[in-house]
Amino acid sequence: MVASPDTRPRVAVVGTGLIGGSILLGLHRAGLDVTGWDPDPATRQAVRDTGVACPDELTVAVDGRAVVFLCGPLPTLPETLRTVAGAVGADCVLTDVGSAKGEVAEFAAAYGLTDRFVPGHPMAGTDRAGIGAAVPDLFDGAAWVLCPAPDGLPAFHRLATLLVSVFGARVVPMAPDEHDAVVALASHVPHLLAGALAGAAGRSPLRDAVLALAAGSFRDGTRVAGTPAERTANMLLGNREHVLRELATVRSVLDELAAALAAADAEALTAGHRAARATRTALFDRPFLASGHDFPTTPGTGREGVTAGADRERAAASPTADARPGDDGAAGELRFLLTLGAAGGYLSDCQVTGSTVRYTAHTPAGATARD
Amino acid sequence: MVASPDTRPRVAVVGTGLIGGSILLGLHRAGLDVTGWDPDPATRQAVRDTGVACPDELTVAVDGRAVVFLCGPLPTLPETLRTVAGAVGADCVLTDVGSAKGEVAEFAAAYGLTDRFVPGHPMAGTDRAGIGAAVPDLFDGAAWVLCPAPDGLPAFHRLATLLVSVFGARVVPMAPDEHDAVVALASHVPHLLAGALAGAAGRSPLRDAVLALAAGSFRDGTRVAGTPAERTANMLLGNREHVLRELATVRSVLDELAAALAAADAEALTAGHRAARATRTALFDRPFLASGHDFPTTPGTGREGVTAGADRERAAASPTADARPGDDGAAGELRFLLTLGAAGGYLSDCQVTGSTVRYTAHTPAGATARD
Repeated sequence: MVASPDTRPRVAVVGTGLIGGSILLGLHRAGLDVTGWDPDPATRQAVRDTGVACPDELTVAVDGRAVVFLCGPLPTLPETLRTVAGAVGADCVLTDVGSAKGEVAEFAAAYGLTDRFVPGHPMAGTDRAGIGAAVPDLFDGAAWVLCPAPDGLPAFHRLATLLVSVFGARVVPMAPDEHDAVVALASHVPHLLAGALAGAAGRSPLRDAVLALAAGSFRDGTRVAGTPAERTANMLLGNREHVLRELATVRSVLDELAAALAAADAEALTAGHRAARATRTALFDRPFLASGHDFPTTPGTGREGVTAGADRERAAASPTADARPGDDGAAGELRFLLTLGAAGGYLSDCQVTGSTVRYTAHTPAGATARD
Repeated sequence: MVASPDTRPRVAVVGTGLIGGSILLGLHRAGLDVTGWDPDPATRQAVRDTGVACPDELTVAVDGRAVVFLCGPLPTLPETLRTVAGAVGADCVLTDVGSAKGEVAEFAAAYGLTDRFVPGHPMAGTDRAGIGAAVPDLFDGAAWVLCPAPDGLPAFHRLATLLVSVFGARVVPMAPDEHDAVVALASHVPHLLAGALAGAAGRSPLRDAVLALAAGSFRDGTRVAGTPAERTANMLLGNREHVLRELATVRSVLDELAAALAAADAEALTAGHRAARATRTALFDRPFLASGHDFPTTPGTGREGVTAGADRERAAASPTADARPGDDGAAGELRFLLTLGAAGGYLSDCQVTGSTVRYTAHTPAGATARD
């Protein structure tokens, strides 16, 4: 991958706890010019102690920056977004790292910020908190969701290029609502299950014996119950409807397993766990197909071409097979991106050269990257 | 710890999959004379390939052995127990590794084997299976439940001594029913939750995107869904009533969390997760009090003495404070052991010298090792 000038932007990170602090350290590690800011004076000092500039004033920290990551707690995000958007230039790209994207995307649309603000969500973390727990490699190779708006593709290109070059991130383009439905099951419901399991153990008259015999299943199943409770509550409340809906689907599968167990139906119980095992196995053992995709960055030119197929199927396809008559370039590109993310795919590269953006896309075998 | 002759018994392991194979390799690593046996010829050959004798005939494998571990699948255990008990000497100590203890303890009682058979359950494992996944250190430092019967204390002494010396195991003495209630929550219900979470993801129309964004919470929360389904089903069916009962308690905590979320009650949602976090934290951060306990191995001598208090409270207590007038030695010892396990405690050492057994016990601070 050849670094373009846009992979070395001047960046600011606002909110330097575990997530923001790790992004800041990752950017600093990569040699980028980065500043930090946090409302907590001790945290600002801790940032300075890592060798990164961290002014006392937010407006000073973001002044003249090309990219700003907003990493404060979910409930503070809308206000921080407005403040920062008012303090930086109109060409500054803004993104966040919150665990739900629907509300903040609506907020950005209501305030006319969709061309500059790309909602984001890096899929990594720990159950620890604060700048003291931040590490520069937390997001290395992680899935990183970005939610480009129809008028936000140039901002998306700049962010995707940055995330790929600094973190080797797998950039997952998704619509905000789709992201929220997916993470409800992929992240939020697991926190509820862990809380219920640890909570039940805590109330048990046999609590101490349960802890003494806690097998790997209990340890793993309760790990995220160690997350600071306020952070978990904010996360769940920020995606309430999707979480409740996905929890209902998990409960219905649990009901089936429990019914099979109550009926001593070994066949049904085994079948249920066999299906679960297949999905668990797919988590680590799914083949992906790689392909290259070019889109014009000048609106209205209307053509996409598949330029490089790392797999035979794609290579054999016509380079223009995916273009659609009458497509506006941006609409076709956006459809390509959102369909890729919904299918479980990701981008490993994004390069803008001249009037063309070139993506390297990876799609799970068997899924389709097109609607 | 000074090794007594009884720490070097000749041992056999019957059923050499993941658990039995790991026990066998651990015993072999410690330099003990050990034989293996498995109904599967290829598994027997795999055992021989590790340098351990593995005759084709079960009766040959267990002939002349002082200790036999029965490690086959749970449903086969009663029959294997009868077969092996008939093939070895009356002074041979038998134990198993099944995940539920109530039924097999009843079976042993019905067949008059409680003086020779000590139900056991080592609390470690992986989601892999078979001799190929076996490793000698799987049980190093693990909690290892043993369920001594009133007439089975000499057999318990020999096993506890062996497990401590070979594996550095934390030996947890428990009554069979209490064990089953505890592991329902500490091990079995987590498998149901993992199965439900992975199962729901597998049925989701967004399955591939869920797998792509699977955070650590999802990965950890579904890990044991990777366990072979038959093994999980056998484990759950072998402890059916306790599992259903503990599942109901987990569901009721989950109901509370979901109700708080549905009502957008941040305070209640945070409080619930805060309680869960406290229990999770206690899993790794509980102080234990160490103490030494002597019991006579000759029945009817009726005295226990606390001989060494590693903590000031115990050291300050009278050495005979725990003895009870009229106690039969065995009854007092058994009560001490079962109370220790129910309180979340464990033994790190067991030494029989002359007519005395000396335990080193560890009790969670705040709990009591006595009834």
